[in-house]
Amino acid sequence: MNDTQHSTSSDSVAVVSGGVGAARFLRGLMDVVDHDHITAVVNTGDDTILHGLNISPDLDTITYTLGGAIDPERGWGLVDESWRAMEALGRYVDVRPAGSGAAPQWFNLGDQDLATHFYRTARLAEGATLTDVTAEIARAWGLRIGVVPMSDERCSTVVTVAETEGAEPTDVSFQDYFVRLRHSVPVSAVRFEGTAELSATARDTLATATTIVIAPSNPVVSIGPMRSLPGVDALLASRRDDTVAVSPIVGGAALKGPADRMLVELGHEASVVGVARLYADIASVLVIDPVDAHLADDVEQAGMRCVVTPSIMSTPAISADLARTTLGAVSPS
Amino acid sequence: MNDTQHSTSSDSVAVVSGGVGAARFLRGLMDVVDHDHITAVVNTGDDTILHGLNISPDLDTITYTLGGAIDPERGWGLVDESWRAMEALGRYVDVRPAGSGAAPQWFNLGDQDLATHFYRTARLAEGATLTDVTAEIARAWGLRIGVVPMSDERCSTVVTVAETEGAEPTDVSFQDYFVRLRHSVPVSAVRFEGTAELSATARDTLATATTIVIAPSNPVVSIGPMRSLPGVDALLASRRDDTVAVSPIVGGAALKGPADRMLVELGHEASVVGVARLYADIASVLVIDPVDAHLADDVEQAGMRCVVTPSIMSTPAISADLARTTLGAVSPS
Repeated sequence: MNDTQHSTSSDSVAVVSGGVGAARFLRGLMDVVDHDHITAVVNTGDDTILHGLNISPDLDTITYTLGGAIDPERGWGLVDESWRAMEALGRYVDVRPAGSGAAPQWFNLGDQDLATHFYRTARLAEGATLTDVTAEIARAWGLRIGVVPMSDERCSTVVTVAETEGAEPTDVSFQDYFVRLRHSVPVSAVRFEGTAELSATARDTLATATTIVIAPSNPVVSIGPMRSLPGVDALLASRRDDTVAVSPIVGGAALKGPADRMLVELGHEASVVGVARLYADIASVLVIDPVDAHLADDVEQAGMRCVVTPSIMSTPAISADLARTTLGAVSPS
Repeated sequence: MNDTQHSTSSDSVAVVSGGVGAARFLRGLMDVVDHDHITAVVNTGDDTILHGLNISPDLDTITYTLGGAIDPERGWGLVDESWRAMEALGRYVDVRPAGSGAAPQWFNLGDQDLATHFYRTARLAEGATLTDVTAEIARAWGLRIGVVPMSDERCSTVVTVAETEGAEPTDVSFQDYFVRLRHSVPVSAVRFEGTAELSATARDTLATATTIVIAPSNPVVSIGPMRSLPGVDALLASRRDDTVAVSPIVGGAALKGPADRMLVELGHEASVVGVARLYADIASVLVIDPVDAHLADDVEQAGMRCVVTPSIMSTPAISADLARTTLGAVSPS
């Protein structure tokens, strides 16, 4: 919060969030809006169970980043992390029976990070909702912004991929695709399994926020899971005038991760225009980087008002300016 | 295996085992019997779930000890252990709602040790039996002796204690009693919950072993759970001539843990005679230390043949001699 802040004390901002890109946007937002007025509604389609532990990668990336504890090199996990448990797991790889998925070494869990999964798993086993546990975890990291999972039920992102060239496509979990296969294989389909519903807290947040921001996250696998939940697109469409999206595609490439390739593989365009076509029904404005300024007319033709401002969040000042401009785009003061 | 070994190549030994005391006895036994002919049938009444992880303390103590990796100072857990996950868990203690048992800090799990619980938990979730998983874990530690859980089902030791002086007795889990309350509160009852049965592997081991040894473990909470399973006492009674027990009580005190106090609190005698009364129906011989030689007649009157030999396993040589004498007591060559 600083003296150039955009919002008034009663304004509230809901940020529809994936992981890393959303976390960076939120960090900028926290410089311009009172933390109590920010709520991140976070994708849980990537959530998984490993070693019996409930893992929520996007929730933890948000919390660790905003808690100032994310490893700046890796972009995920904690600073000063150690990997003793993972190293010790190596002992069991050779004794696994054929077909067993135990002792997976492709998904690294740091020793300190494990404590978060322990706490989440134990609380869920006690009957707490993911919403409750996430709020407790955010409080433990000193956050005053709201961190809200999109749902208390499982919604699992399933990715259809050809694991090797020419192989028959098979369905794998999101983490299988993203981490084990290093998102380096072609994707022929993405779907979301489960009967999850938007949680009451998430619904209330999206229904009442002064402004809704769709963070610069992967439209397919980070924002897509939330949009797959019953009624979410209709809810966002009803808030369209107050909803602004920040393009995760800059100059035809994803700021982070495989969004660019994935968009093309799934028949979309890996450009701000492709993003605009995906979001036109639910958001009125798309924020794009100057490098894409020449596509502004095409974005408007796709049905979104276009705001051009630096959106590569390489410094805190750029992030804060991006947040300020983004909010201003739908609620001009 | 050495040139003074007692057994012939076809002899087999089953050791009814708790944790630390049994592990030390087994280490001596491994010096005098071909490892392929030794099977430990191990208590699982202490097993618990923490942070969503399946913890089997006695199985791990046996495996780590015989794998040469137990911490010699603590007597449990791994050498060169670190505690980063447990330390990180401290962050969550203050955000727990009242009544939550999440983030328990009283049960220490080392970072390397966690890998074993991860593997066990993941394999059980895949549908493997505890028997299968335990064999895999033993193989990962290079063991050739058999390590067999008494059951594939849950049998939970429940201890009735007065947590504070004068308080109404309440039921707590074994780990609550043993670790959280540091086995320092009076025990008024012990019982075993569940519908577990002796596993087929354990039954076969006890039915066919040339010799059965009841290890120097706590008769109530280490050997008791196995004896509580349907048919186990009858099976052992049918093998009585081939079964020898090593007293865990020496000079009226437990070699390790609270067995002495617990025996008295539950109306037994904390002496080799008290032990003899508990085992007379299922074992024909009790091995006692020379410090208790004056009680040999009383042991025989309680219904067990008595063999006197040093049983404080302070050196590998003493442990090996104890193992040799113990086997010789029921199968004289």
